[in-house]
Amino acid sequence: MPQRLKLIVAYDGAAFAGWQSQTHRNTVQDHLEQAFRKVNGRPVQVHGAGRTDAGVHALAQCAHVDLADRRLTAAKWTTALNALLPPTIRILRCQYVSEKFHARFSAKGKIYRYRIWAAPILPPLELNRAWHISAPLDRAFLKTAAEKFVGSHDFAGFAANRGKPETNTTRTIRSIRVGGRGPLMTLEFDGDGFLYKMVRLIVGAIVDVAVGRSAIAGIVRRLDSKCTNGPRLCAPAEGLLLVRVWY
Amino acid sequence: MPQRLKLIVAYDGAAFAGWQSQTHRNTVQDHLEQAFRKVNGRPVQVHGAGRTDAGVHALAQCAHVDLADRRLTAAKWTTALNALLPPTIRILRCQYVSEKFHARFSAKGKIYRYRIWAAPILPPLELNRAWHISAPLDRAFLKTAAEKFVGSHDFAGFAANRGKPETNTTRTIRSIRVGGRGPLMTLEFDGDGFLYKMVRLIVGAIVDVAVGRSAIAGIVRRLDSKCTNGPRLCAPAEGLLLVRVWY
Repeated sequence: MPQRLKLIVAYDGAAFAGWQSQTHRNTVQDHLEQAFRKVNGRPVQVHGAGRTDAGVHALAQCAHVDLADRRLTAAKWTTALNALLPPTIRILRCQYVSEKFHARFSAKGKIYRYRIWAAPILPPLELNRAWHISAPLDRAFLKTAAEKFVGSHDFAGFAANRGKPETNTTRTIRSIRVGGRGPLMTLEFDGDGFLYKMVRLIVGAIVDVAVGRSAIAGIVRRLDSKCTNGPRLCAPAEGLLLVRVWY
Repeated sequence: MPQRLKLIVAYDGAAFAGWQSQTHRNTVQDHLEQAFRKVNGRPVQVHGAGRTDAGVHALAQCAHVDLADRRLTAAKWTTALNALLPPTIRILRCQYVSEKFHARFSAKGKIYRYRIWAAPILPPLELNRAWHISAPLDRAFLKTAAEKFVGSHDFAGFAANRGKPETNTTRTIRSIRVGGRGPLMTLEFDGDGFLYKMVRLIVGAIVDVAVGRSAIAGIVRRLDSKCTNGPRLCAPAEGLLLVRVWY
């Protein structure tokens, strides 16, 4: 009977071509699978809670693997994997779980944070960690625009197609907390699930309104409309951070 | 009559072999001088408030250059230099100043921040930005140890030799503020001047005491002793940040 191991993983998205395994690519999943194989002697498939695109960071991504036995304790797995992984990927902890747990299908929700630096000059230490917008942004205004997205909506108009279209594009956003200090603006999304590029397309729409390029009425019209045509601004990957996965 | 331009510069120390110009090296001063030469058509020497070692970051380093004229406004210099510099170096602002101003000799003091991450695992986004110490540290204890250094002391015992020894090794530390949250410990030094590696040697001594490797009495003995022998722990460059220069 396979032994299921749950992993909490943090990574610097700037260092990788995203989460999902690709032939000859430097992805987080590939690095994890290589590390498991080195410890285990045989291939193991890592199942993530969701994919993140190239450039997207994670404070606590979740994944699971099925192992043949429990020869190594969960704590030993943490140490062994971290010894083999690059320092831009860290296993924060491991835990043996029941086979009923599935990193993707058991997830009840996720928290994503989006970071914007709104000032003429981007500080070097914010490079690859925030979306740089030269114009000043009004935090109260971002909040007003963000509130339009809270609740259950058909988010088809704020999703990108990744191969086969999703059959159900309704999702619930429990809250969007707008914060930050000075030129740093943060938007923290707590929702039951997110379509492909949904957070980045929502942030793009909010910023488009905030800088006066489009009207807030346009956001409302696109929500629940299933309309995927027309120009849409997708906020860049480097501002996005997967904060945690709820189970 | 030369026109003196003052610069406020930020950089990510991980990207450079330190501040000071070196033959065929990737230093901050070299990048600045190259950028000036491209705009100006002739070589210009950049005078920094002080050198920072490879890996040390700056939020607001200060420097000056002497130009032949004021053909470009200070704001234009900011834009022109930033267009030529790598994004890991940013000119935050430029200002024409009197010839009496000298980035190094007019400096009345500096603020340095040192960042420590005290937990078994270093989050990927803290890589190159903090000193990773696996053991937990007690913030109140760091504070007690830090207070020993506040005031005017002969810091020869907490300095490294860089070619010719300093004739006067007495410096005044106005304050050391200990802060941070969770595993992040910050020590912010405000002083009239700092000897070579002084902040890193002080932080090393404080940590040595905090983890129980040496006694606090040893710190006190070494202060004002001019003793530079014996084992000393130098905290790594990547945790150090030049916050600002006072004039």
